[in-house]
Amino acid sequence: MNQLGRLFSVTSFGESHGAAVGCVIQGCPAGLPIDLNQIQQQVDRRKTGQHHFASPRKESDRVQVLSGIYDGKSLGSPIALLIENTDARSGDYDALKDVFRPGHADWTTHLKYGHRDHRGGGRSSIRITAPMVAAGAIAKQLLQQVATIEWCVFVSQIGSVSTPMLQADEERIEASPLRCPDSHATKAMLQEIDACQAQGDTLGGQIHCHITGVPAGWGEPVFNKLHAALGQAMLSINTVKGVSFGEGFAAAGQHGSEHNDQFVIEDGQLKTVSNKAGGILGGISTGEPLTFDIAFKPISSIKQTQVGATVDGNTTALHIEGRHDVCAVPRAVPIVEAYIAIILADFYLHHQLHS
Amino acid sequence: MNQLGRLFSVTSFGESHGAAVGCVIQGCPAGLPIDLNQIQQQVDRRKTGQHHFASPRKESDRVQVLSGIYDGKSLGSPIALLIENTDARSGDYDALKDVFRPGHADWTTHLKYGHRDHRGGGRSSIRITAPMVAAGAIAKQLLQQVATIEWCVFVSQIGSVSTPMLQADEERIEASPLRCPDSHATKAMLQEIDACQAQGDTLGGQIHCHITGVPAGWGEPVFNKLHAALGQAMLSINTVKGVSFGEGFAAAGQHGSEHNDQFVIEDGQLKTVSNKAGGILGGISTGEPLTFDIAFKPISSIKQTQVGATVDGNTTALHIEGRHDVCAVPRAVPIVEAYIAIILADFYLHHQLHS
Amino acid sequence: MNQLGRLFSVTSFGESHGAAVGCVIQGCPAGLPIDLNQIQQQVDRRKTGQHHFASPRKESDRVQVLSGIYDGKSLGSPIALLIENTDARSGDYDALKDVFRPGHADWTTHLKYGHRDHRGGGRSSIRITAPMVAAGAIAKQLLQQVATIEWCVFVSQIGSVSTPMLQADEERIEASPLRCPDSHATKAMLQEIDACQAQGDTLGGQIHCHITGVPAGWGEPVFNKLHAALGQAMLSINTVKGVSFGEGFAAAGQHGSEHNDQFVIEDGQLKTVSNKAGGILGGISTGEPLTFDIAFKPISSIKQTQVGATVDGNTTALHIEGRHDVCAVPRAVPIVEAYIAIILADFYLHHQLHS
Amino acid sequence: MNQLGRLFSVTSFGESHGAAVGCVIQGCPAGLPIDLNQIQQQVDRRKTGQHHFASPRKESDRVQVLSGIYDGKSLGSPIALLIENTDARSGDYDALKDVFRPGHADWTTHLKYGHRDHRGGGRSSIRITAPMVAAGAIAKQLLQQVATIEWCVFVSQIGSVSTPMLQADEERIEASPLRCPDSHATKAMLQEIDACQAQGDTLGGQIHCHITGVPAGWGEPVFNKLHAALGQAMLSINTVKGVSFGEGFAAAGQHGSEHNDQFVIEDGQLKTVSNKAGGILGGISTGEPLTFDIAFKPISSIKQTQVGATVDGNTTALHIEGRHDVCAVPRAVPIVEAYIAIILADFYLHHQLHS
Repeated sequence: MNQLGRLFSVTSFGESHGAAVGCVIQGCPAGLPIDLNQIQQQVDRRKTGQHHFASPRKESDRVQVLSGIYDGKSLGSPIALLIENTDARSGDYDALKDVFRPGHADWTTHLKYGHRDHRGGGRSSIRITAPMVAAGAIAKQLLQQVATIEWCVFVSQIGSVSTPMLQADEERIEASPLRCPDSHATKAMLQEIDACQAQGDTLGGQIHCHITGVPAGWGEPVFNKLHAALGQAMLSINTVKGVSFGEGFAAAGQHGSEHNDQFVIEDGQLKTVSNKAGGILGGISTGEPLTFDIAFKPISSIKQTQVGATVDGNTTALHIEGRHDVCAVPRAVPIVEAYIAIILADFYLHHQLHS
Repeated sequence: MNQLGRLFSVTSFGESHGAAVGCVIQGCPAGLPIDLNQIQQQVDRRKTGQHHFASPRKESDRVQVLSGIYDGKSLGSPIALLIENTDARSGDYDALKDVFRPGHADWTTHLKYGHRDHRGGGRSSIRITAPMVAAGAIAKQLLQQVATIEWCVFVSQIGSVSTPMLQADEERIEASPLRCPDSHATKAMLQEIDACQAQGDTLGGQIHCHITGVPAGWGEPVFNKLHAALGQAMLSINTVKGVSFGEGFAAAGQHGSEHNDQFVIEDGQLKTVSNKAGGILGGISTGEPLTFDIAFKPISSIKQTQVGATVDGNTTALHIEGRHDVCAVPRAVPIVEAYIAIILADFYLHHQLHS
Repeated sequence: MNQLGRLFSVTSFGESHGAAVGCVIQGCPAGLPIDLNQIQQQVDRRKTGQHHFASPRKESDRVQVLSGIYDGKSLGSPIALLIENTDARSGDYDALKDVFRPGHADWTTHLKYGHRDHRGGGRSSIRITAPMVAAGAIAKQLLQQVATIEWCVFVSQIGSVSTPMLQADEERIEASPLRCPDSHATKAMLQEIDACQAQGDTLGGQIHCHITGVPAGWGEPVFNKLHAALGQAMLSINTVKGVSFGEGFAAAGQHGSEHNDQFVIEDGQLKTVSNKAGGILGGISTGEPLTFDIAFKPISSIKQTQVGATVDGNTTALHIEGRHDVCAVPRAVPIVEAYIAIILADFYLHHQLHS
Repeated sequence: MNQLGRLFSVTSFGESHGAAVGCVIQGCPAGLPIDLNQIQQQVDRRKTGQHHFASPRKESDRVQVLSGIYDGKSLGSPIALLIENTDARSGDYDALKDVFRPGHADWTTHLKYGHRDHRGGGRSSIRITAPMVAAGAIAKQLLQQVATIEWCVFVSQIGSVSTPMLQADEERIEASPLRCPDSHATKAMLQEIDACQAQGDTLGGQIHCHITGVPAGWGEPVFNKLHAALGQAMLSINTVKGVSFGEGFAAAGQHGSEHNDQFVIEDGQLKTVSNKAGGILGGISTGEPLTFDIAFKPISSIKQTQVGATVDGNTTALHIEGRHDVCAVPRAVPIVEAYIAIILADFYLHHQLHS
């Protein structure tokens, strides 16, 4: 129930302000060379405190490998990864012990479990994704053995600013402090973020994915469709409110004659002239790029006074202190990549069962 | 892998033109009174051949109960449901034996499995959902024991026509041949369908869900979030290309101060003044209505000439014969309801483990 | 929960006197040629009514394939198998509606579920294994593609008679009406059965397995050990009370120097001089024959008067009518083979993930 | 695949000489008061170095809680437990880098995975059970909330010495250095151990379980039978070669009239006069004590010269150094208890789904 993937699976554990966050990877085949630096790099991409619009909480986020890797290679046994919580200022949250913040999971966690760890969102914190990014880095290394996948994942919208770009190389994405490859859009987004920060407010946004190189035949026809699994993964990321594939919601307004991707021969290879399907037909990859979009709501910790609630069932005026992002969408890019990598590694293993 | 739900789970089997389609329900508690008529009624709602714009294939779709129910009540053992394929005109598909149709799963099924049942889409057919609807009817009867859920699921868009309505009662929905509670919109949609049919084309659309009465506390905080599970279920339905919750993609353009649902006391009960979250915070239900939207692409079998492909890797002019819907979105309404019911029944059982 | 195997999995459904018993196989790779006659033959080996000491209930036990096989080959989709219950004389069980029989699952089923199908043991009947044997026949056909496995599974004990044989060919096993390859032992066993039948009593026994040809490397080191999975499968067969591997319980009395299988080179191949481990070390197959023993209690439906119980909590004198085996162990041989085949097919697929 | 239990599940990770061993518990309901001292006590019972016949490896085995417990109570989130490997003298194993020891998993691990951690058995080491014992202690605390279970688990045989005792209280068991409540047997066993140690040899044995207080109705009728799940758990413990329930293998020689437990009324309660079934009928608990026996082979690391093998396929004279037990069966007692507790906690949760 705390697991992403089935054959290549990652089981998550940890609370935001407990001793540590971590995960256990199962299903990674033995003998895979594993580059620990690459893992740390991906985790560092996710870190906060890198820009003025991001939370100044500073975690070293050093990934410790507890098991499953020996002499630089996977053993075929579970790979346990650990990241200690070193800069967890629990005191910041004392005032929130008996209070529910609008838009947060405080209320529902209380309704479900009764007993909860109120410090920093507990299990609902974005911090939970840190070891998942490490796991995603291992998934990427597994995928490298079988396919040359290009990870084009970028911020396509923040607040009212969006970019028409559908594709970009990684370098250009990382060159932007907002992970948006469009420099004009980046500039406008930064202005909107500054204005928003001045008001103590927060912003949502979108991420666009264009993943090239996924082999054809991955995914299953009914309940383990590739896009259903990707969709579930994306909806598991904090603040995500929607996901769509290929033409997405626009497809609802299209005719079949407009939407169907016609076949064509290119370099002797059967392909489609367009890719409105987003690289998936009937839940199975076509070999064309996987394209999809993910919508993020603005993060809920705003600095304006709100109407919160108390454990004993009353409302209360609420002013949230603490270190929070204005817009977390850029930091979500490595998370999105990691979750995609885990799902793809899972489907790669599935595919092995039919070869 | 052919399963929806975990604790209340439904395992699907069957191909469109094989002997039968069916499913096996596991996890239904013993002693639940089960009304077989209600099951048949739900399945009948899904049937084709009910309107001029729907496929004239006529299946009696009589649900047979093979196990798990005795003397009108569930036994706690697996409930196997079977629907025979009686009007499967396989001959219609002979011409498609070695051909891939644009937008269909033919190509990817071939790429994945090599050997395939080309008749009527095989496992990728919408026919697979018929026994799932029967299973959903049982899930609904289970839910009735614990909550008064109102199933407001309706067509909110077909082609270029959409309705601003966000809520309606079941009677009004079913009164429309398109399951759209807005009579003006229904009329416009019917005109667009007629025009489209005249051109041998097809249409996509949207379904809006507004589910009232789901208790608070259902769902899990990280990887079994209620909306992630619902999202995966929706993306498992044929032709679905997107799903969004609450404000959905619009949330990407909002400020936190605009999006956060503030608390309020109503009738002594803690509630939120708005429901932009769509009834789910941090993956767990709040007790507010679940609201979400689902986008369907137009179905792929158009009557216009297209560029198909052949098994040996060439393109070919393709004209699809057979009995097909112009717009399948209205028929998807009972499917959507059934899948939601299965997911909710699953989370109800999860919830039992914490009580 | 009603499933045997994980990657090659079989989900069972059906009650003894309901409409049908059946199962759904998931994970069978596409393109496997499937011989339906072999399936029927295995199911027929399990049938009752073949000897005077076996229940005279006569079921045609015709296996129907509902899905997953097309044109003589598997599709990669779920294979649903059905066997109708045609000779279910429910009337025989009317007297048992409110009565619990000693040694039977009546009592515990009532304690667990409240509502139960009392006819013929419902879900706890040996009849449930009929479609599982069909599934096992498909598992065997899958295994044939990758290994030459010899299925030496035979009755090694009935009542007080046992055979010292540890190995035999299939022909010799099937030549015995008791599936015991030792003709002297068979004769003595038959006499004991006759004497037992005259007293209205029943007999237990043992089955010995010596499976040759299982490749090395199947099984997992901690919780999916090959022998743990086989053990669970064997303990899932009705009336089984114990299972042991290699030297089994005798190993408890041995020294390490006596038990350890020393290495040797044979035909240039690394092997062990003995096989006290039973072909499994640390949960993983060595390539040596898998050897294990299974103990069956006598079946519980004896014709002598017993002290039963009633639903309202009293005891009652009980005389069981109906058609029952004196000793069901010979009929269990094809069941044991089928369950082993399913587990091995499952581990074969697991093994694919590491190749 | 590295998991014990389904609803209350424990995922194991770690190698014997890696950084740490640990596990992640999922499914523990929120709000359970958890006594960390009791956890440490159970783990300490498992430790080695406590007697002259046990391995002198000294691990502090301090259990660290990384997540899932806050303010003395479970949060409903995954509970991650960690035990560092502090006294791992890897150098002891250098000589074994390219060598397979008879009776050990070295050979099969190499055959399966290719790449392996040869130090101390890696993943196949008994050390893996340390955090599982901690998890079992939490399972016991969960069970305490719903039932008064008495854990009578003791050594019933070592080598050629066995005890006729079938039941004993915990104090008497723990009073024996061998965890055998029969003082005469203990003395004889100690003599046999001493003699065996003098020869550089090792000894097997048996453990008997008599678990009182398990409520009726736990277990499932077909593939999740209580004894099948317990059997799988027991066969997952290192060196276990057999498991049997109630009368076990003796049942194979019995008549039905002899084996069936007749009903009786005691204190107004329906019970059975005997308990040959071992407290389980048709896979479901009766409420009578669960009784079963587990056979352990002698541990494989003997100090006598053996014929080992090398990675390049030759045999070699082998003399094993290092710190090893003469007889590990007494240390297995807390492991057996822990695994039983985990399985029972799992079935308790299952049972919740039917209440």
